[in-house]
Amino acid sequence: MPELRKDPVMGTWVIISSERSQRPRVFQNVHTKTTPSLCPFCPGNENNTPPEIISYRPNGTQRNQPGWTLRVISNKYPALIVEGDLNREAIGLYDKMHGIGAHEVVIETPEHNLNISEMTDEQARDIFWAYRERMLDLVKDIRLKYILVFKNHGEAAGASLEHPHSQLIATPIIPKRVIEEIEGSKHYYEIKHSCVFCDIVKQELAMNERVVFENESFIVIQPFAPRFPFESWILPKAHLASFPEMDPDKYLLLGRTVKELLKRLKMALNDPPFNYIIHTSPMDGEHHAYYHWHIEVIPKLTKVAGFEWGTGFYINPTSPEVAADFLKKVKIEQPVSA
Amino acid sequence: MPELRKDPVMGTWVIISSERSQRPRVFQNVHTKTTPSLCPFCPGNENNTPPEIISYRPNGTQRNQPGWTLRVISNKYPALIVEGDLNREAIGLYDKMHGIGAHEVVIETPEHNLNISEMTDEQARDIFWAYRERMLDLVKDIRLKYILVFKNHGEAAGASLEHPHSQLIATPIIPKRVIEEIEGSKHYYEIKHSCVFCDIVKQELAMNERVVFENESFIVIQPFAPRFPFESWILPKAHLASFPEMDPDKYLLLGRTVKELLKRLKMALNDPPFNYIIHTSPMDGEHHAYYHWHIEVIPKLTKVAGFEWGTGFYINPTSPEVAADFLKKVKIEQPVSA
Repeated sequence: MPELRKDPVMGTWVIISSERSQRPRVFQNVHTKTTPSLCPFCPGNENNTPPEIISYRPNGTQRNQPGWTLRVISNKYPALIVEGDLNREAIGLYDKMHGIGAHEVVIETPEHNLNISEMTDEQARDIFWAYRERMLDLVKDIRLKYILVFKNHGEAAGASLEHPHSQLIATPIIPKRVIEEIEGSKHYYEIKHSCVFCDIVKQELAMNERVVFENESFIVIQPFAPRFPFESWILPKAHLASFPEMDPDKYLLLGRTVKELLKRLKMALNDPPFNYIIHTSPMDGEHHAYYHWHIEVIPKLTKVAGFEWGTGFYINPTSPEVAADFLKKVKIEQPVSA
Repeated sequence: MPELRKDPVMGTWVIISSERSQRPRVFQNVHTKTTPSLCPFCPGNENNTPPEIISYRPNGTQRNQPGWTLRVISNKYPALIVEGDLNREAIGLYDKMHGIGAHEVVIETPEHNLNISEMTDEQARDIFWAYRERMLDLVKDIRLKYILVFKNHGEAAGASLEHPHSQLIATPIIPKRVIEEIEGSKHYYEIKHSCVFCDIVKQELAMNERVVFENESFIVIQPFAPRFPFESWILPKAHLASFPEMDPDKYLLLGRTVKELLKRLKMALNDPPFNYIIHTSPMDGEHHAYYHWHIEVIPKLTKVAGFEWGTGFYINPTSPEVAADFLKKVKIEQPVSA
């Protein structure tokens, strides 16, 4: 049973996940790498994964058989598990609870080497549509307080399998960084009576120094105070706190927008490892006035060192204005921004 | 001129350091690595570094010449610079200021391959004594609000040079993570009227599940809620908020304690890359009741992925009890813990 444990000073929770456990000896071989010979996410290998939760099968094929265009499965090595109760417990000054939650994998395509930047618009849309479907389902579990959607691309960004996939983790607590972002937005709202993200959209459009591209519904920027070189934010222009509540018609354009940003990053930076994370409000029906969902994309170009770990204070050698200019100049076919 | 910029949502500051700037094109070669043929930190190459701020020269040799056992220099590529004023400025909803501060390098030994775990006790002491000396000097600059001391060992932990060294960065703001740790300690103190770190020391000694070793003045533990496998804390047993205010007699034992922990990590985990960071109170003479300086050591064994970036919520596959047991069983000569 994985455990959630709380740091008594910082108040942050960590997952101690013995199910994913590697015995200490494994770390001694940190320099070597093994790649499985058989990809469990490729069609024909469905019996190597847990059974699918949902799948998109345009041709009406059978569950857990080839023919799908996208599958969502439980993670075979889950950080949190669905069955059980929270069983909160104090041990002296420490707090812990059972690691209850959900950990799912979205297999984005049957093609082993087809990354989002090379997909059709419809394929890219389906990924975000699948996130939406799973979020709307997981929110029904009242033990769960937050649903985090993220993608790791490339080994340096934490991807252990090459086949294009992303993940959902639903947690019984709201992660501290999410709380801080919401509190920051709320604080701004209380002072200015407007949404800080709406104001960022307005100011970025007016200044036009950090905009990579924009379209009818989304703006892609290098943020004013990026922690990492080429950190990129996709902001919806319409104010909305919760990602899965977006107008269903907009997922196609969202897919195209993500695709274009990833294509520009790939061409500008030689297919860098990256993470993206959907920042959305907890699904409790609150925060609507002041929070604004968005996606943060972080290429992994620099090493995060002691200074950053110790402080949460980042040194970024590339200004967002230089990065925006560089990404804007990438020549791509059929930009959605046109 | 480097800039400090504030994230308008989170309130965190980042350093945009064009002095350290790499043009975007540099990132395209992220997979290749260049090592300078001449080590600027080795004796005889003193003219390849900025002039020394302090040095330890038992044999009375001349400044910026060989003969030293430890040197402190300004960083040749500083993230923050000493000259200038802060020049705070708002641009619409954004805030920025000049990147004023200090960025120094402690060259820990003249020997290119002598890491702390192999040094004499006196050599290890001198490193921490040098931190103390520099902190007591830098605190006189009233523009500076915090002094961060850290070490990156190994390329994966962010070290760009192999020669043993550590760094001091003095900043004109208190980093958010430091504020949060202090606020967390204060909150605990307000409820319990005791120091949370003193209580951790007591509980860890009583439980004896996560103690790696201890001696008269220090305890080395795997914390209850570690973010990373083998994350290790060195806690002084005596309550004290500020590292450089420690009794001068205790630096020798501190050096021996750090040395033993690094030796155990090295032997257990095949010389892993690691960072250590001194967590100490801002040097403003406050926080004495509730803060407690300590050192956090983080081996770099796992990749930090999208989930962690997005949430500040970490998944750790190794429990601290297993890690403590593993480190305790490492056989080393002359343990200081005996």
